[in-house]
Formats: sequence, structure tokens, C-alpha cells
Amino acid sequence: MSKLATLIGVFLGLVILILSMFDFEKGHLLSAFFNLQGLLVVLGGTFAATLINYPLNQMGCFFRGFVKVFASEPHSENEAIEQIIYLSHIQQKKGVLALEKEIDLISDKFLRFALSEMMVYRDIEHLSTSLENHLNSMRLRHVGCQDVFNNMASYAPAFGMMGTVMGLIIMMTAQVSGAQSSASGDGSGDMLSSLLQGMGLALVTTFYGVLLANFVFIPVAGKLKVLSDAEALKNEILMFGILGLKKEQSPLLLRESLTAFVNEKNKQKLEISLG
Amino acid sequence: MSKLATLIGVFLGLVILILSMFDFEKGHLLSAFFNLQGLLVVLGGTFAATLINYPLNQMGCFFRGFVKVFASEPHSENEAIEQIIYLSHIQQKKGVLALEKEIDLISDKFLRFALSEMMVYRDIEHLSTSLENHLNSMRLRHVGCQDVFNNMASYAPAFGMMGTVMGLIIMMTAQVSGAQSSASGDGSGDMLSSLLQGMGLALVTTFYGVLLANFVFIPVAGKLKVLSDAEALKNEILMFGILGLKKEQSPLLLRESLTAFVNEKNKQKLEISLG
Amino acid sequence: MSKLATLIGVFLGLVILILSMFDFEKGHLLSAFFNLQGLLVVLGGTFAATLINYPLNQMGCFFRGFVKVFASEPHSENEAIEQIIYLSHIQQKKGVLALEKEIDLISDKFLRFALSEMMVYRDIEHLSTSLENHLNSMRLRHVGCQDVFNNMASYAPAFGMMGTVMGLIIMMTAQVSGAQSSASGDGSGDMLSSLLQGMGLALVTTFYGVLLANFVFIPVAGKLKVLSDAEALKNEILMFGILGLKKEQSPLLLRESLTAFVNEKNKQKLEISLG
Amino acid sequence: MSKLATLIGVFLGLVILILSMFDFEKGHLLSAFFNLQGLLVVLGGTFAATLINYPLNQMGCFFRGFVKVFASEPHSENEAIEQIIYLSHIQQKKGVLALEKEIDLISDKFLRFALSEMMVYRDIEHLSTSLENHLNSMRLRHVGCQDVFNNMASYAPAFGMMGTVMGLIIMMTAQVSGAQSSASGDGSGDMLSSLLQGMGLALVTTFYGVLLANFVFIPVAGKLKVLSDAEALKNEILMFGILGLKKEQSPLLLRESLTAFVNEKNKQKLEISLG
Amino acid sequence: MSKLATLIGVFLGLVILILSMFDFEKGHLLSAFFNLQGLLVVLGGTFAATLINYPLNQMGCFFRGFVKVFASEPHSENEAIEQIIYLSHIQQKKGVLALEKEIDLISDKFLRFALSEMMVYRDIEHLSTSLENHLNSMRLRHVGCQDVFNNMASYAPAFGMMGTVMGLIIMMTAQVSGAQSSASGDGSGDMLSSLLQGMGLALVTTFYGVLLANFVFIPVAGKLKVLSDAEALKNEILMFGILGLKKEQSPLLLRESLTAFVNEKNKQKLEISLG
Repeated sequence: MSKLATLIGVFLGLVILILSMFDFEKGHLLSAFFNLQGLLVVLGGTFAATLINYPLNQMGCFFRGFVKVFASEPHSENEAIEQIIYLSHIQQKKGVLALEKEIDLISDKFLRFALSEMMVYRDIEHLSTSLENHLNSMRLRHVGCQDVFNNMASYAPAFGMMGTVMGLIIMMTAQVSGAQSSASGDGSGDMLSSLLQGMGLALVTTFYGVLLANFVFIPVAGKLKVLSDAEALKNEILMFGILGLKKEQSPLLLRESLTAFVNEKNKQKLEISLG
Repeated sequence: MSKLATLIGVFLGLVILILSMFDFEKGHLLSAFFNLQGLLVVLGGTFAATLINYPLNQMGCFFRGFVKVFASEPHSENEAIEQIIYLSHIQQKKGVLALEKEIDLISDKFLRFALSEMMVYRDIEHLSTSLENHLNSMRLRHVGCQDVFNNMASYAPAFGMMGTVMGLIIMMTAQVSGAQSSASGDGSGDMLSSLLQGMGLALVTTFYGVLLANFVFIPVAGKLKVLSDAEALKNEILMFGILGLKKEQSPLLLRESLTAFVNEKNKQKLEISLG
Repeated sequence: MSKLATLIGVFLGLVILILSMFDFEKGHLLSAFFNLQGLLVVLGGTFAATLINYPLNQMGCFFRGFVKVFASEPHSENEAIEQIIYLSHIQQKKGVLALEKEIDLISDKFLRFALSEMMVYRDIEHLSTSLENHLNSMRLRHVGCQDVFNNMASYAPAFGMMGTVMGLIIMMTAQVSGAQSSASGDGSGDMLSSLLQGMGLALVTTFYGVLLANFVFIPVAGKLKVLSDAEALKNEILMFGILGLKKEQSPLLLRESLTAFVNEKNKQKLEISLG
Repeated sequence: MSKLATLIGVFLGLVILILSMFDFEKGHLLSAFFNLQGLLVVLGGTFAATLINYPLNQMGCFFRGFVKVFASEPHSENEAIEQIIYLSHIQQKKGVLALEKEIDLISDKFLRFALSEMMVYRDIEHLSTSLENHLNSMRLRHVGCQDVFNNMASYAPAFGMMGTVMGLIIMMTAQVSGAQSSASGDGSGDMLSSLLQGMGLALVTTFYGVLLANFVFIPVAGKLKVLSDAEALKNEILMFGILGLKKEQSPLLLRESLTAFVNEKNKQKLEISLG
Repeated sequence: MSKLATLIGVFLGLVILILSMFDFEKGHLLSAFFNLQGLLVVLGGTFAATLINYPLNQMGCFFRGFVKVFASEPHSENEAIEQIIYLSHIQQKKGVLALEKEIDLISDKFLRFALSEMMVYRDIEHLSTSLENHLNSMRLRHVGCQDVFNNMASYAPAFGMMGTVMGLIIMMTAQVSGAQSSASGDGSGDMLSSLLQGMGLALVTTFYGVLLANFVFIPVAGKLKVLSDAEALKNEILMFGILGLKKEQSPLLLRESLTAFVNEKNKQKLEISLG
């Protein structure tokens, strides 16, 4: 569902963009929108500033972020609850040690981590601190990755605007020397004409900057935040559940306290799947 | 009262908008304000970016948000207090188990949830944690829905401005080739004339963006926040009351501690309705 | 003191505004600054968006806010301390029950509320929770009222800018058709002339928006915050004092711990008034 | 050191400002930058809005803020530590009561307050609460004063921009009537000329607004924050030390725990001065 | 890795900048981009405002910040964990006192500080408070240094914009007097020509401001934040480890609880290096 929305969004955005840039009379995209040097200033400037801002390994976030946005689904709370209830039933029937065999069958990384920590620590205080430390440093890493995109979203329009200012400066000073060299009668009309052309070219970088920020960087950062929030909620549910397992709460009590995390609709789904 | 304000606001806004766009000499709305392609860029771009930003199920917030703004009233604190006092009297007279029969008669979802949780848990600590978890994840879901509108409120003017920049680029470069093809005497006047027309057309997307943001997205997000805050306060009162019921506080003490949540005016109303 | 500052501010602002809008040659205010349709767009748009944003009863904040700004003085910390010390002396001399007779003589609403709560609760924990709940929900109501003005302060310039964009669109497209209908020789000069006039008219809404935001909405929201902060501090002192009374601290100890809240100057005043 | 930086900053800023406004050909400052009416709009508007925003006694912050910025040095952490260690030695040698004689010799207001509170309270809990209340309300007062400057920093450019919009409106509408009255041949050139002059005059208020905000209000608010942060750290160290004195910790232990607050460089200085 | 990214970023940025400013026809950089007076306004104004804002010793942050960005690597969490495990083995084998000999061999400042504090305090509460105070005041110093750059990043574009406004005012008023002195036929064309040149010159300061902010101040502040966050995480791990050593936890348990701080990849590396 999440990937689908992203793909629809990208497709819709591209269609609108192409329609807006299309010259219907001549049947091709307007060449005025393609300006390699302008793109270089905006994209290059944005990447240069980002490279100064972040160490190389955090730049990896950039590529992983794109993959995540197109390939990941937000974690489901219900699945987390079902897994905990399943483990709780095993614990009740076969004892704590039987859980150890389950660890390798679990696909969720945090649950695997939490379960093996639960085996190691005798003390519930220790277990809780350790899981919280794990979640906190995970959250910090996620926020760090979102910040890469958030920063790029503010660099892109800034360099777009800088490119326009540079274009205007070049155009205006060139204009003058050009006008002085021609010096003849209808200078005013000609000048306005090339002035407009120069301004049009200069504005392209502003267009690039706004487009990149609002169509790429901000939505990607926003989607990463949505995914990260869903993962945080899932992990919180798992942590709450693992601490309940440690306290040897009954599956019924555990189920009651875990359903407090979900909304009405998911609760009904849970009741169907858990019986 | 809340719906009424929204309807008055929408009506007032539409009247002002139509008056401002009306050409009184010719007796119809100015056609310059209607530009399908411009609307496509702003609305389409906003939706495209929002679709990349959010999974499909969170997009449901968009429609539910509109329904809520036009159909919901902010939850009343007094009603919540009255319900708790009513339940407290039942508990005092007929015992805790009599409350179980009341559950199905309660319309408020959170109160129903809290009351059934109160039946399940023996421990007041457990009950309190569970209710808090429920409220926290509810609050997170609400904030997530408001954020959809807040994001759209920042996408709309950005794409409006992008549309204007695109319009200016198209106009300026087209202008030049047009002016060069005419090349005759009074180019300057003609050029300025069509320049202005192009600029007018280009500005329409800025108008759309600002209008959508300030007349639709920001007020709707704001109203959702007001509704959500009122619901949060109501739920907090209910939670406080349910914990008081669990502690078997007397109705009088409960009433005293719950009236601390309301202002002078509501307190007087409460005293009338509770006697 | 506080009302005086507000009145001076309003007077100073009006004088400057009128001086800036005055045409000294002709001896009257420049008519260019009065544009009913423009005012309608800015004020009407702002109110329309605010009405969508808030339920009707919160709109009452708008009027009460103005009254408060012109009529209220910030609450004095010293007065609060003096009242508590006075009550403490009574309690020491005549016992707790003597305080009950004082309740009706107290003008401060929160102190009256806190004192009657102190009579009701035996437990200091209960009393403290109840007073905190009261203060928290009061603070939320105050913040809600300030937000009405803060939102209007961001709506006003947005609708001002929207009005200007609309004016420019109307002017530019009208310009073109007008210029084409005249079609004669000195079009360029005439056109520029009416272009400027149209632009001047269009800019009036920007002026209205900036003026309303910076001369009305932002200062009023700011003043409400100052008043609310002073009231919060006063209430915190009263709460601290009432809890001290409940613990039956001696007037001397109470005085020592309450003077910790005030600065050097107020401390000296207190020492004079308390002796 | 702090005053020096401020003075260098003011001097450097004035030199740059004067150099930029100097007409080297004619040997005097450009008269275009001096516009009394413009200054009245920006400064007057800023003060009017600030007066509506704050009660008169908080306006005193404005003058005290300037004095503080030019006359205060940030409080030194080392000095605070040395004073505590000194008091600790006295306490160890001569007992707690000997500290009472020291109170009048102490110049630091907070230390004097804390020391006398330490004499009054028997209970360390009481002492700690009282000192924290004192620090919190001091911090709130400081933030309130910084906010006066922060608000002025946002009012100034807003009124600067409003002045420019007003200037443009006056100029454009006056332009038109002027052009129509002349009505003769070379209107276009003349008009552009006076148009530019009007625009130049109108821009002066924007210049004033940006200059006042970035050269006066923002730096002063920033400096007040730096001074306030240093004072808060100093007070925290003193509070920590006084609580240690109350617990009758040895001078050596106290010194160890207080040096945790300072960086490497200050630690070495401390070791030299304390021996 | 971190230094490399910074160097690549600086190199990439310079290449793009030079390419954009190069006049390929004439084979040299466009002289329009070099304007000493403009640079003076932007850089000088930024430094003047910063000097008013900060005491001289905090200005040292400016130079140390640059050195740090080009010379520092983010602290490695794994290294911190390995050091703690190493110390834990020594403590287990040779007792606590053997750790004292290790202090001088440790290069990490915070670990050295924490270890010597651990020797001094008997009480784990004292140790924990002291280490937290140390980390808090370190964090405040780091934030203070980042703020210097953040403030410069907002001063630079403001003074850039102020320079442009000043340039426009000078140009426009000079223009007028020039045009009036020439007064002859083709004034309009000439005027537009020099108008453009003046505008081009005026825009250079905007370019400087945006460039300095987005290519220097914002990325440097961002990099300092990344480095500071990595150091904070490392210090938190070390503090957690030292407290574990104080509690005489076994190396195995310590290792388990410390690996909770790192991600999957680092965990695997740790398992290889620790065996």
C-alpha cells in the first residue's frame, strides 16, 4: 500500500511536470527548461554543501533512503502483537527455555535482539534499560538520516536562488556591454527582448531548486519519518511485550494490554486473527 | 456551534472570493482566474508530493479530516464529568460489577474501552499504563493526520510559486521568439502588452497556492488540532475519573477533583446539571 | 502601568500611521490607502479562515482578548505572597477552620479555588494533583486563546499578499485588453501610467495585511502571553503557598520560601509591606 | 573581553556602514540614506508595537539590556568554584556558624541569597526546592527580557517592509496624476526617472528595518542570551556547591565534583589558583 | 572518511562555482562577481554583528570550528566499547586498583576523566551525578559553538540583502540626477542600460550572502553538530560502561549491555574484534 502510493505520486508528478513543460504547438518539451549548467549549480551545490555537512558513511543514508521509500512498507502493529502473543503461548506451555529455539525463526531484527537479551539478563531493570538504549540509539540514527534529506531540501532552493542571482548578474552586465556595442536606433526593444531571455534562463535554477526540494527531498524525508515512526511504535509494542514475557504475564493479560496500542479497526482485525 | 463556525467561515470566504473575482462591468467572473493547467500544477503537484510522503492508508486522513471538520463538535468536558459521576453513583450503590452492564450503554468509545479495561485489571498500575498507552498512540495517530494537512499547506504555495516560475520562463522565452518574428516598428508596446498578459497568467498559480493553503489546508489542520485537543482533554478527564473509580473514591470526592479541570462557566453549568 | 503602555503604543502607532498617509500639500489623507474591496479581502479572508479554524466559542477569545489587553494589569507576585502570609498568620492563630471564613473575602479566583480545595482534601497528594490539573487546563485554555491571534497574524499577511496577486492579475489582463482597444500611438506611456496605478492599488492589500499583523494581531497575542505568564507565576506561588499551609509550615518559613520567587526589587518592597 | 568584542563589533559595523553610504566623488554621506519620515515609520512602528506587546516595567528591559551588553562580563565559572571551596574550608575549620559572618563579604547576589537560605532551612529538600524556585523565576525574567529584543527584531523589518509598500503606493498613485497633468511628449523618460527616485526613497525603510534588526536587536538579544546562560551555569555551580556544603562534604570532595562543570583549560587554571 | 567527504564537498563546490562564474568566450572569470565593497558589507557586517553577539573567547569557536571540520573524525562507538571491555578484563583479573595505572595510557579525555572520578568517589550516585554534570556542561559548550555558525548563517544573507537594497538606493537616486543632467534624446535606452548595470552590481551582495551561508556557515554548523552528536553518543557509552565497572559487572554482561548501543553492522565488527 505504501509503495503503491509512492509510485502513484511519482507517476502523477511526472505526468503533470511533462504536461506543463510541453509545447503543444511544436510537439516537444520546451528546451527552455533544460539547462545543464543550471542543473549543475543546483544539484552540484546541494551535494557539495551536503558533503561538507555529513561524513561519507552518513551520505550512505541518501541511497538507502531512496531504496527504503520505494521498497519498504510501514511496520504493522498487529503483526508485532500477534508475534508476542504467539511467544507468550509457547512460554506458558513449554517454559521460557523453549523461546530460545524460536529466536532463529523470527524475521524481525528487534524482536530477535530483544528475545536474546531477555535470555541473558536475570534482572528486569537491566533488560528494560538495555532495550531502551537500543531503541534510543536506533531512533537517533533514523533522525540523522532524515536530516540529510531535510538539509538537502533547504540547500536546493537556496542554490536555485543563488543560480538565478548569478544568472541575473551575468545577464545584466553582459547586456550593458552588448547594448553599448550596438548603440544604434531600436536598442530599447532589442535589449528588453534579450533581457527577458536572460531572465528566463536565470529563473530555470529557481525552478530546479523548488522542484527538487518539493518533489524529491521533502517528500522523501517525510516518508522516512512516517516509516521510522511506524517502526518506533512497533518496537515499543515489542519491548512492552517482551517485558511482559519476562514478568511471565499470562497470554490473556498480555493481549489485553497490547491491544491498547492499536485503533478500533486494527483491534477488530486482531480479534479475528487471534480468535 | 463548531460546525456553524466552519460553515459561516466557508460561506464568508466564498462570498469574498467571488466578489473579488467579479467583473462588475461585464457581469461575470473574470476568466483570468480560471486556468485549468495552472490548477493542475498546484493541486496535482501537491497531491503527488503528498502521495510520495504518506502511505495510502494515511491518505484516508485527508477525506476523514474534511468530514470531521464539517461534522464533528469538540468533545464537551462537562459531559465526560457527568458520565463519570453517574458511574460513580452506580458503583457506590450497586457495586463494581454493576458497572459491567453499563458498558454497552455508553456511546463514548474511550470510556467504553477504559471501563472494560478497569474490569480486566486488578492492579491500578497496570490499568493506568494501559490507558496511557492507548491515549499516547491515539494522540500520535491524530498528529499524523494533522501533519498530512500541514504538509499540504506547505506544498501548495511551493508548487504555486513553481508554476509561476515555469509560466514566466515559458512566457519570456516565447516572447523573445515572437518579438523576433514580428521584428516590426511598434514591438516595444506590443511586447509589453503580451508580457503583462503572460505574467498575469503565470501569477494565477501563486494565487491558487496561497488560496488553497490559507483557505483550505491550514484552517482544516488547525480545526483538526482544536478537535483533537478537546478530545485529549476529555479523555484525560475520563482516565482520571476511571482511575478514581478503581480506587473506589466517593462520588463527592471524585466530583471535586474532576471540576478542577473546567473553567468557571462550565463549573456553574455542572453544578446546575449535577444538582 | 500595563494599560498605559498599551494606550501609548496605540496612540504612537496611530500618529505615525496618519503622518505617513497624510498628503501635506493637499491637506488630507491620501485616498490611495483607502480601498474597501482590499480591506474586505484581507479582513474577510482572515476572519473566514479563522472561523473555519476555530469553534464559535473559541472565537469569543477574540473579543475577550482585546478587552483583556486594554483593561488587565499583569498579576503582582508580591500581592500573592502577602495574601498567603496573611492566611498563614490566621491559620497559626485561629486554626485551619478559621480559614474557611476567609474564602468569601478573597478576590483572587484561583486562591479561592485552592483554599476551598484545601478544606476538602485530607491528603496533600490529592490536593497537589487537583491544583496542578486546574493550572494545566487553565494554561491550555490561555494558550488556545493566544493561538487565535497568532493564527490571525499569519493569515492576515497571506491574504494581503493574495489580494495583491489578485489585483495584479486583474490589472494585467485588463491592461492588455484596454491597450488593444486603444491601439493608437503613445500606448506605451499611457499603459505604464495605468499599470503603475493598478500596481499601487494592488499593493494596498499587502499594506493592510502587514499592518494588521504587526500592529494588531502579533502585539495582542504577545500581550496576552505576558499577562498569562504573569498569572501562571502568581498561581504557582499561590499553589506553593497553599501546599505550605496544608503542611502547617510557620509563617516565617513560608515567607522565606515564597520570597525565593521574586527579584531583588520586589523582595525589598515585600520586606517593607510585611514588616 | 566581552565588552571589548562588543565595542569592536560596533566600531567595525559603523565603519562599514559609513564607507558604504559615502559618496567618494562629492565627499559626503549620500543624502538618500537619510529620510526622517522613513525612520519614524520603522522606529516608531517598532516601538508602538512593542509598547502594545509589553507592560511599561518590562520596557525597562530595553534600556537595562543595552547597559548590560556594553558593561557586563559573562560570569566566570572558576570564580564560583573558588568561592565555594573557600567557604568549604571555613566551614570545615570553624563550623557552619562561621559562614554567617561571610555572607556580608560576598559580592555575588545569588551566593549571598543561597548562603542565607542555607542558614534558615534545616531540611536539605526545602533548601534545594527554594534555590530551584529562585533560579527558575530568575531564568523566566531573563527570557522575558530577551524576548523584548527578539520581538523588536521581527517588528523592525516588518515595519521597514510596510514603509516601502506605503512609499510605493504613494509614489505610484502620485506618479499617475503627475504624468496625466504633464501629458506631453517625453513622458516615458521623465516618468521612469521619477519612478526610480520614488522607489529609491521607498526602499530606505527596508534598509532601516534590516539594519536595525541585524545590527542592533538580534545581536543584543543574542548577547543577553550568552550572558544569561553564563549566569545560569554559574548559579547552577553555586547551588550544587551550597547543597554540598549543607551535606557537609569535605573541601576535597566538593572540589572534585565542582571541577566536573568546567572544561580542560579552566580546570588547569583552577588547579593553579587552588593549589 | 569524514575529512574526505568535507574535502570532496569543498572541491566540488569550488569547481561548480568557478564554472558558473567563467566567461568561456573571453577565458577569464567574470569581473562582475568581484566587488570588494560588496564583500566588505556582507563579511564585515556578519562579523560585526557576531562580535556584538558573542564574547571574544566564544569567537575562538569560529577558528576551532573550521579546524575541527577539516581535521576531526566522528568518534567511533566501537572503539569506546572495546576500551571499556579491555578495562573490565583488567578489573576482573587484577582488581580495581590496577585500573589506576591504565589512566595515563588512555588517550580519550572523557574516559580518563571518568576513570579518575571512579577512583575518587565511593558512592555510585555521586559518580553518576558528577559524570552527568560533566557531559551536560560539555554539551552546552558545543551547542554554544554551533550557534556562532548558525547565527552567522542568518546574518550573512540578511547583510547580503541589505547591501543589495543599499546598492539599489544609490543606483536609483544617482540614476535620476545623471538622467537629468544628460536630458537629451535617447535617455530612456541609456538609462535602462545603466540601470541594469547598477542592479547587477547591487545583486552581487545577495550572491555573497547566500553563498557564504549555504556553502560555509550552514554546512560547518551542521558538521559540528554531527561531530558533537557522535562524541555525545561515545561519551554516553563510556559513562554507561564506567558505571558498570563501578558496579563490578562481569565483562560478559557489560559487553552485552554496551552492544545495545550499536547497529547491526558495528555489532558484527565488534564480535570480530572482541572475539
